[in-house]
Amino acid sequence: MHPMGIATVCLSGTLDDKLTAAAAAGFDGVEVFEPDLVAAADTPEAVRARCADLGLTIDLYQPFRDFEAVPPPLLAANLRRAELKFRVMERLGADLLLVCSSVHPDSVDDDDLAAEHLHLLSERAADHGVRIAYEALAWGRHVSTFDRAWRIVRRAGHPNLGLCLDTFHILSRGSDMSAIRVIPPEKLFFLQLADAPRLDMDVLQWSRHHRLFPGQGAFDLAGFLRTVLETGYTGPLSLEVFNDVFRQADPRVAAVDALRSLLGLQEAAGVDTALPAPPRLDGVAFVEIGAGAGADAEVAGALEALGFARSGAHRSKPVALWEQGSARILVNRAAAAEGATAVAAIAVESTDPPASARRAERLLAPILPREHRAGEADLAAVAAPGGTSVFFCRSDVEEGWRADFAPTGDPAASDSVLHGVDHVALTQQTDDFDGAALFYRTVFGLDPETPAEVAAPFGLMRSLSMADAAHRVRIALSVAAVRRGGWAPAVPHPQHVAFATGDIAAAARRLRDAGLLLEIPANYYEDLDARLAPPPGRLELLRANALLYDRDGDGEFLHCYTPVLGSRVFFEVVQRLGGHTGYGAPNAPVRMAAHRRDRLRRRA
Amino acid sequence: MHPMGIATVCLSGTLDDKLTAAAAAGFDGVEVFEPDLVAAADTPEAVRARCADLGLTIDLYQPFRDFEAVPPPLLAANLRRAELKFRVMERLGADLLLVCSSVHPDSVDDDDLAAEHLHLLSERAADHGVRIAYEALAWGRHVSTFDRAWRIVRRAGHPNLGLCLDTFHILSRGSDMSAIRVIPPEKLFFLQLADAPRLDMDVLQWSRHHRLFPGQGAFDLAGFLRTVLETGYTGPLSLEVFNDVFRQADPRVAAVDALRSLLGLQEAAGVDTALPAPPRLDGVAFVEIGAGAGADAEVAGALEALGFARSGAHRSKPVALWEQGSARILVNRAAAAEGATAVAAIAVESTDPPASARRAERLLAPILPREHRAGEADLAAVAAPGGTSVFFCRSDVEEGWRADFAPTGDPAASDSVLHGVDHVALTQQTDDFDGAALFYRTVFGLDPETPAEVAAPFGLMRSLSMADAAHRVRIALSVAAVRRGGWAPAVPHPQHVAFATGDIAAAARRLRDAGLLLEIPANYYEDLDARLAPPPGRLELLRANALLYDRDGDGEFLHCYTPVLGSRVFFEVVQRLGGHTGYGAPNAPVRMAAHRRDRLRRRA
Repeated sequence: MHPMGIATVCLSGTLDDKLTAAAAAGFDGVEVFEPDLVAAADTPEAVRARCADLGLTIDLYQPFRDFEAVPPPLLAANLRRAELKFRVMERLGADLLLVCSSVHPDSVDDDDLAAEHLHLLSERAADHGVRIAYEALAWGRHVSTFDRAWRIVRRAGHPNLGLCLDTFHILSRGSDMSAIRVIPPEKLFFLQLADAPRLDMDVLQWSRHHRLFPGQGAFDLAGFLRTVLETGYTGPLSLEVFNDVFRQADPRVAAVDALRSLLGLQEAAGVDTALPAPPRLDGVAFVEIGAGAGADAEVAGALEALGFARSGAHRSKPVALWEQGSARILVNRAAAAEGATAVAAIAVESTDPPASARRAERLLAPILPREHRAGEADLAAVAAPGGTSVFFCRSDVEEGWRADFAPTGDPAASDSVLHGVDHVALTQQTDDFDGAALFYRTVFGLDPETPAEVAAPFGLMRSLSMADAAHRVRIALSVAAVRRGGWAPAVPHPQHVAFATGDIAAAARRLRDAGLLLEIPANYYEDLDARLAPPPGRLELLRANALLYDRDGDGEFLHCYTPVLGSRVFFEVVQRLGGHTGYGAPNAPVRMAAHRRDRLRRRA
Repeated sequence: MHPMGIATVCLSGTLDDKLTAAAAAGFDGVEVFEPDLVAAADTPEAVRARCADLGLTIDLYQPFRDFEAVPPPLLAANLRRAELKFRVMERLGADLLLVCSSVHPDSVDDDDLAAEHLHLLSERAADHGVRIAYEALAWGRHVSTFDRAWRIVRRAGHPNLGLCLDTFHILSRGSDMSAIRVIPPEKLFFLQLADAPRLDMDVLQWSRHHRLFPGQGAFDLAGFLRTVLETGYTGPLSLEVFNDVFRQADPRVAAVDALRSLLGLQEAAGVDTALPAPPRLDGVAFVEIGAGAGADAEVAGALEALGFARSGAHRSKPVALWEQGSARILVNRAAAAEGATAVAAIAVESTDPPASARRAERLLAPILPREHRAGEADLAAVAAPGGTSVFFCRSDVEEGWRADFAPTGDPAASDSVLHGVDHVALTQQTDDFDGAALFYRTVFGLDPETPAEVAAPFGLMRSLSMADAAHRVRIALSVAAVRRGGWAPAVPHPQHVAFATGDIAAAARRLRDAGLLLEIPANYYEDLDARLAPPPGRLELLRANALLYDRDGDGEFLHCYTPVLGSRVFFEVVQRLGGHTGYGAPNAPVRMAAHRRDRLRRRA
């Protein structure tokens, strides 16, 4: 494996906060971002010593801007500036300086002059034992592509001058990667990795605010990395991600996300990372809902209404097992405060639970200590972002988790309507959203689906779902695009479990009979009629049963909801017709407004 | 004055939250945004009644999309869809429907066909007493400019068909406004107003996420409005602003901002609004700092160190007056909790305080009840966003606010170094930032200066300052671009008062002698030397006195800081050389890191 690095600009805090977080996550080295050093009270010597203590190499000092192809007085000033920075680098023990292609209005479009100036700079750098990595900014005034930067580096012909490749600057322009193959590895001084969503905007703003860790965006970083490694590049794989959310998020969490993303990227690029391959997942074994006193009865009531049987009681904990088809819900009275509810855990059926757990651990998922008594199952458990635990298990083995439950003998409903868990939906805190998506994607080995954006009553929501190829495990994440202020009266960070059915109308009727069907206003059906013109029978079915509806070329999606049970958990029932793979995102605002009304009504 | 309206999409909440907020702010009418109605439990009839109760007209129902210039089967479906919507409008009592130019992939580039289809639609609309306002979306598939939309409307030649002009769609494209002059007023059915910052990005994303209320962005809305009104347009002036922050902010606050922006716009466009013109401001009369027990001594210590004299004591309240030159600080022990500090009030010298107050009141600034005893000054006071009060006063009158203070007889420092207040800097909550800028700009009559963005240690900061033409009153606002999560250890919402000096080194020495100079690290001066190469004497002066430094073509800016006093207030001293009008924004990250270190050191 290559040494793994991270630019300090990726993380929030003071320089020491950043170095500490990078080392704790397991990075081998850092790029020191100049403004972080400038604001630090530690001298360069002290930073050098701190990095040594932390086991971090200083792989790069950056950025040095607006140097080349300028008039003589500016060149002289730039060389003076460089000289002072070389001295800082010597004290810091950093021997590689990133020089970005100029955006200076006085720079000229002359590769020969640029090469000459960079040669001069490299000469001065050599006196201090420093090497120069020249990088084409995507918005460079004259040099904005890596192949042109490479021609200038070649022309300059100085041993202390090489190239820095940054995936953002190259992939944001849609440049042809194949030209990378002609660069000899000894001239490829540095590789900076960043992903990004595809945005149609000013590239500088895109770069400065919206970069993401590998795998969180839309770039083909695995293909890029393969191409670079095929040249024989042996330097560090270093992340340089400017992101408004990461800039203010806990750097200890962000650094773990960063390293996880880099491991996932290497796996995707075929680099041997010693990561166990993700075992096949066969579905959701159970979802554990924490429901404190008071709330537990609400949850139990909804499960009963839906036709679940309370089939087991945990032998040592206040946990009930409810079952219907392959849908299993654990209700844990000890896992939430009075009146509160939360998705405490998601257990997935793994074909090889120990390998799943090893993979999660290698991907830096915190391993949870399990309290289990003699004779009880010892499930491998890790902590997912947002307070949910994840278990890997096999329900079909003798000594599995089910043996912990004493059968109650309660009969299942004779007319079972639900046959399994369709998906689990979790709402994340702003800072956790991209990290949570990365977690479930890499740890479970799921593929991301199309992101959605929904204008909900109390603010914009973004969502991203992910699933295995067979759609046996689906996780849907969402987040308030702007972190909520004091006004929003909606349920904070709601979570829900969606059950699959073949007869949604029957499920809705059961809920309504129990007073637990979320009612949907007439306006919705009138609009639905205008928009999608469902056949009259279908429209009447929807309207009569408070069902929401979506449709695309692949099929239809019918769904209904319970009220919010306790503080923030509710259930959904979904019926998929044809090959529909969506989640009814366009209906989310209607559902949210209905949940709010329902809450106000119940409180009144 | 024209009737003033607002689209419900501008505001957060359910439809009823929005209607209530719009009416409370004083709007005359609303555009009902369809998704708000669809999610509402109220029938169209009930919404109609509610609007009538609130005194709101329903000026527009919107949007109807993707109608015209499509193949026959799609046209038939679109007419069916329209028919159902016309019925909803009849029940709602809305007689104007916004039809946006099509973005449908099956629409064709044929103005004759578009005109024919719109004629057909208008025919059907007429049967329901509905009129159609056709609007060119800036990203319309074929029709993306208002003049082309106007040609189609003219060609269609139906009395129930007219044009809707939306400033965003027109100004985002940089279209020539003069073509508006040829549109007869009776064909101009509706006017939607929105401002926006100049962004170089996909216009649809720009429109959906970044619109602002008039005066908060970069568009020439006053010029636009003048042009439209010169045509003889008599319809409502209606705001349609899609903004991610406003979408989740308290709608009662946002609706007030909206109406304030519309009043300011009309004033700028020369419409008679009965707003008193902003009286000339002659400076900051005083800043009142709330400093609870414990914190008051810290604030007093810093003022003393800076050479302020405690010249007066309030006759009835626990408030001390500190003076130096024209800089005056009131320290109010009753206006903050124990250990806390805040800028409780800013008093500005107005040449006509009653007119300033009347203007503020007409601009919906909440008037504050003043507690004053017989014989004490009755200052006109309004509440600014963020918890700061604003007073309008004249310090040079006999019975002014100073008469409330009994002179202490404390002598002023013999060697006064500060001569006034340079600016007051306030950090806003995310939801308040654009509103606060609007408030100070319109109520005080200040001009906005260049916005700045700073990558601070704990997240990106945005700032906007504003000043009167003579720079006598300067207010600098800033905000964390992403609302902070739990990690950020910085001071929440810091505020500071910056004093002007002619001898910054002397001021810094005084602070240092008192142990109240914020120390700046050596790395800063090494970087400053490399970046700006100040003459050696100047560099030494800066370094020796912990001064920060900025420079541009207009002059130099030298500044230094005290530690944070109490919970969130600190002082700055600034010296401007030449005509420098900045605030040292590039130094903010260094200052913030230094403040954090100082806090940790003091706590240790």
